[in-house]
Amino acid sequence: MALAPDRLGPTICIGEILAEVVATTVGSGFAEPIPMLGPFPSGAPTSFIVQCSRIGGSAAMIGAVGDDAFGQLNIDRMTREGVDVSGVNIDPDLPTGTAFVRYRPDGTRDFVFNLWTSAAGRLAWTDAVDAVVSRAGHLHVGGTLLGVPALWSMVECAAQRVRARGGTVSFDPNMRKELQSDRETAARVSAMLAMTDLLLPSGEELFLAAEMPQQNGEEQAIKHLFSLGISEIVTKRGAQGSTAYQVAGDATHAPAFVVEEIDPTGAGDCFGGAYVATRRLGMPVDQALIYANAAGARNVTRRGPMEGAGTQGELDAFMAGTERVTCST
Amino acid sequence: MALAPDRLGPTICIGEILAEVVATTVGSGFAEPIPMLGPFPSGAPTSFIVQCSRIGGSAAMIGAVGDDAFGQLNIDRMTREGVDVSGVNIDPDLPTGTAFVRYRPDGTRDFVFNLWTSAAGRLAWTDAVDAVVSRAGHLHVGGTLLGVPALWSMVECAAQRVRARGGTVSFDPNMRKELQSDRETAARVSAMLAMTDLLLPSGEELFLAAEMPQQNGEEQAIKHLFSLGISEIVTKRGAQGSTAYQVAGDATHAPAFVVEEIDPTGAGDCFGGAYVATRRLGMPVDQALIYANAAGARNVTRRGPMEGAGTQGELDAFMAGTERVTCST
Repeated sequence: MALAPDRLGPTICIGEILAEVVATTVGSGFAEPIPMLGPFPSGAPTSFIVQCSRIGGSAAMIGAVGDDAFGQLNIDRMTREGVDVSGVNIDPDLPTGTAFVRYRPDGTRDFVFNLWTSAAGRLAWTDAVDAVVSRAGHLHVGGTLLGVPALWSMVECAAQRVRARGGTVSFDPNMRKELQSDRETAARVSAMLAMTDLLLPSGEELFLAAEMPQQNGEEQAIKHLFSLGISEIVTKRGAQGSTAYQVAGDATHAPAFVVEEIDPTGAGDCFGGAYVATRRLGMPVDQALIYANAAGARNVTRRGPMEGAGTQGELDAFMAGTERVTCST
Repeated sequence: MALAPDRLGPTICIGEILAEVVATTVGSGFAEPIPMLGPFPSGAPTSFIVQCSRIGGSAAMIGAVGDDAFGQLNIDRMTREGVDVSGVNIDPDLPTGTAFVRYRPDGTRDFVFNLWTSAAGRLAWTDAVDAVVSRAGHLHVGGTLLGVPALWSMVECAAQRVRARGGTVSFDPNMRKELQSDRETAARVSAMLAMTDLLLPSGEELFLAAEMPQQNGEEQAIKHLFSLGISEIVTKRGAQGSTAYQVAGDATHAPAFVVEEIDPTGAGDCFGGAYVATRRLGMPVDQALIYANAAGARNVTRRGPMEGAGTQGELDAFMAGTERVTCST
């Protein structure tokens, strides 16, 4: 089944809304005062929904922030981008979630989070949330939510409601470690896959989702995932570009753009937001893939998790001025 | 009654341990990404206890941090300064508290806190806390704690235990607004004042503590506070220096040092830490006041809430090289 068209209702995202502070020097940890830049609006679902809206898709966010400047920063940003924030709750007690990020010399990252112990962890199904879900055409779910018991029931209920009215669901596993961790989370991943129309794995996540060793090869993993009812799988391969597999059709590959990486955070979320929005707006797979690659690539050229999210015009300009990797493997 | 001598046992502080991030440009709020510097070890009691130890007083901290880099930063710093951290609990779930600070052009500050909803708010009376309180010679309490019902019982119990073994108690109201706010907090302030030996008010806090209008004059406020059992009152007046009043003795004034203010946060805490430590080490009031003024003044010349805390030698060097306000009012 193709993704539900944009006219059915907005793409909605449920999940964490954060303020992010990024260390501007490369190094390890936070053992002493270092220069930083922030707060940036942040959170994987927030980045996804901002890119989704920015490229022209109708979009709404479900989440919770604190009654503080960091919550306002996110609400203002989403509002400016055209995202419906009526489903964003302002928690009177808990603060907006925060993430401190520092890049190590080898490209890995050190984090200090206040995530599920912030307002983000006390998200509840309010009347406002119900209203947003009732008119949604598509739900996008990030894997990090599946590790949070209190949020899983919301995700499950929203997915069922959206599907019941003819909407579709996309799922970005985004949880390399957690996928394999505890049995409860693994059960939620299975339940999520059974409700997924579009799967957006990065790297080894394809095999983790298929519960298959990598040596079985992509084809077998894809075949298994299609057998679960998934109709479209787009693998994000970073510098190797991306590939879309459709249950009824050939694989389509799009090469990556060559960019100088400033801050990789949010690339996958912008990719997903652009892909879902353009597909729902009726763009064919090959074009949507190129826009998604461009959205991810443009985003890594700016510091901050969604500062490089682009409009269609901005992405057109970016593509015109950016080389693509010609020989991908 | 004079403060209990250092040999009776360490000065202990109960309260918040935070990581602080300071905006390096002057301006209003956090509505967009700005350059910042951090994390600095922070929290008023943390600054107090670090200065107390650094100037030579024996010192121990009671507080709670998260199991994260910001907690470790604070534990490492206090340990390096010689503070006993056996009473610092590492909370397995909640993060270390955070404070974002930005100075406005008029010198006031914008904050974003995760304070009592962080590990700091889940402090409990553990065996380790009991052991620290059992050997304490002096307890210092900051007024912010009195607004937190869950922590008040700890403060009250610690104060009673320390006094029962011949120890003393100091109290820094540090809560202009809260002092007048709700009736419960006001009742706690009264209870606290009844257990206080040394009061360390800033500005109008003297009158708030005495529950008297400013026009009654300092003398009357002081007299009333002495009638509650307080034996020493030191008023912190910033650029106007500081004055010590003793129940049996004259007022002693010490002028302020002339410094270029980089970051005023923590000045009052460093003042208090130096004053309590030197008094407990046997220093007469006039000398202790000068060291306390120097500790506060030196601290505002460095960014971060306790980065200017000094050893006695560092403060001697600072005093030798720094002009004092000659004509104070």
